[in-house]
Amino acid sequence: MTIFRYSAEDAQLHEQCSFRVGIIPNTLNLGSRLHEIQQWIDANDIKFADLESGATQKSFEARIAALLGVEDCLFVISGAAACQIAVRIWAAQSGKREFGMHATSHMEFHEDKSYSMLHALRAVWVGSYDRPLSSSDLEVLADEISCLVVELPCRHVGGNVLPTMEEIRALRQIALTRQIKLHLDGARLWVCRPQLQTNFADVVNCFDSSYVSFSKEVGAMGGGMLAGSRKFVTSGRVWANRQGIAGDRHPAVLLDAMRCFEGTFMNFDNFVMHAREVARLLKASTFCLVVPEIPNTNMFRAYFPVSVGRMMAARARLALQAKQWVGTWFAAADMPEYCYTEIVISLDALRLEPQAIADAFRRLSQIADEA
Amino acid sequence: MTIFRYSAEDAQLHEQCSFRVGIIPNTLNLGSRLHEIQQWIDANDIKFADLESGATQKSFEARIAALLGVEDCLFVISGAAACQIAVRIWAAQSGKREFGMHATSHMEFHEDKSYSMLHALRAVWVGSYDRPLSSSDLEVLADEISCLVVELPCRHVGGNVLPTMEEIRALRQIALTRQIKLHLDGARLWVCRPQLQTNFADVVNCFDSSYVSFSKEVGAMGGGMLAGSRKFVTSGRVWANRQGIAGDRHPAVLLDAMRCFEGTFMNFDNFVMHAREVARLLKASTFCLVVPEIPNTNMFRAYFPVSVGRMMAARARLALQAKQWVGTWFAAADMPEYCYTEIVISLDALRLEPQAIADAFRRLSQIADEA
Repeated sequence: MTIFRYSAEDAQLHEQCSFRVGIIPNTLNLGSRLHEIQQWIDANDIKFADLESGATQKSFEARIAALLGVEDCLFVISGAAACQIAVRIWAAQSGKREFGMHATSHMEFHEDKSYSMLHALRAVWVGSYDRPLSSSDLEVLADEISCLVVELPCRHVGGNVLPTMEEIRALRQIALTRQIKLHLDGARLWVCRPQLQTNFADVVNCFDSSYVSFSKEVGAMGGGMLAGSRKFVTSGRVWANRQGIAGDRHPAVLLDAMRCFEGTFMNFDNFVMHAREVARLLKASTFCLVVPEIPNTNMFRAYFPVSVGRMMAARARLALQAKQWVGTWFAAADMPEYCYTEIVISLDALRLEPQAIADAFRRLSQIADEA
Repeated sequence: MTIFRYSAEDAQLHEQCSFRVGIIPNTLNLGSRLHEIQQWIDANDIKFADLESGATQKSFEARIAALLGVEDCLFVISGAAACQIAVRIWAAQSGKREFGMHATSHMEFHEDKSYSMLHALRAVWVGSYDRPLSSSDLEVLADEISCLVVELPCRHVGGNVLPTMEEIRALRQIALTRQIKLHLDGARLWVCRPQLQTNFADVVNCFDSSYVSFSKEVGAMGGGMLAGSRKFVTSGRVWANRQGIAGDRHPAVLLDAMRCFEGTFMNFDNFVMHAREVARLLKASTFCLVVPEIPNTNMFRAYFPVSVGRMMAARARLALQAKQWVGTWFAAADMPEYCYTEIVISLDALRLEPQAIADAFRRLSQIADEA
């Protein structure tokens, strides 16, 4: 399977809107993005010698390592591959081919079973479809596993996507007792802080290895970090070369990640607060249901009593009429004739008033009703 | 192992030179490169809708497929990984884990045995260290193999890096008879045409699958194509997703590859002719040996009766004194107290007169002698 992409028609409509809520494709305004990277290179006096020798990459790796409270980091250009690599390293260390993951794991759904086809690993599902992993899930697990992959937030569980820090610490204790390594798939770790009420290092220190991303909330063209002990990252570097995802050859991706990270870093918590305010306004409305009522992160679900087809047509109409583009995609809900979308607040949507965002969804709903 | 990189000191010297012969790092003048991509986007009216829907990528894939005379192509961001993928596909089809490759293969030397560690494949060395693969090498091979990887040019064999088209066709015949698939690792296929005296499609059609690159001679930031039948490319797409090297997420890398390809395409043969002229002038000199006397491609070796250390020091002096930077690296030769370098002609060096290039190497040699 490949990544989500707008059709040419939807992309065209999306581009014509100045009001946008959702995930912004990294292909949008690519020319301006390249210009901004250029300006950033000048403003930050990024030197060819440092780029070429790897010093620029090393400095960013050190910056993120310090933030996450780990010994070392490695810049890579694929998060999917990075998480496979972490599991493979723990398998090699323990001699066990089995590892645990949540039943809704990205590794299962988006990567064509790469963990098995490439790394000859076997996955055990831990926990339940409808809630994040808990310590009791690990406690009752009968299988022997090398490591457990934990997604924070656990996006696909339906809204309540984060366990408490207490739960994470309890999971850590059980993992230590059973000699199971914990890998954090923390692509969106950046927006977990308000709910977990702690700092990034405190979360990451409950894990033996971690992955964080610079696309998604950070908004870069790509790239992420594999993080952990110096020994882990040294192994990770060899595996990244084997798998073809080493960041070394992609200076533009690196600089865009650095630029976007500095530009969003101070706003991560604001994304969440903004999402909570939008959710509060939508909850007070009658045209949709909001799950969860208080978003755990900058993302929550909104359910509409409309079919996907009508909703997609309504979105196109809203784009044409009001130059407003809302929601990245719509999918069928379990309830018949209901559809849902994920509402995501990042840099673009942060600039819009919560009331304006709620109003746009109200208008969308009205258009869908009228059709 | 990671890619070749200049130290910060060498990079700084390199940057100060306006006269450059060798492989130009893609980190050099990154800001201007981004600006040129931007201008290219405008000049070619590249639309967001086409980038987002994948139409731009598809059109480039179709362009290269037509040029190579294959059914389909897939844009990927790692050539090392692309060649592993080809071998894995042929292994799956044949049910055989063993494949053949030249003893100097990139797969062996630069990728930490990824074919074995990731794909659980076993490599058989075919042919001899000191010359490219020949049909007789395959003829006498006792092992059963799924496919044979053939590098064109076979860079590491010491200078004479290309077999004849007759040899390639003979190899094809034997491979067909023995039901062995042939994979072309043609990262530098672009500069093989004058020596092989035919077109790209004629070469590629002797193989079941191919890889071509847009870095190296083409000079792009990265990216390459996996090429072959529609069925092969469909499998390749799944594997590229598994391995994390799908080009989908890297629009800037794609556009830079498109831009650089159009900018160098007409010059590939000129690179070779220019290299031959430089080699002829150097051959007439007394300060170095040239291998081969008539370069097969845009790259040949020059041997100097100087140690590596003295040569590196001389290059730094030449850069300081004359703002000339020659050769990407120097390595110890088999002959004691001799070192050698690869002289590569691509876009930057094509702008310099062959005599000026030969003179620069003479000056380098003199500085090394005086030290």
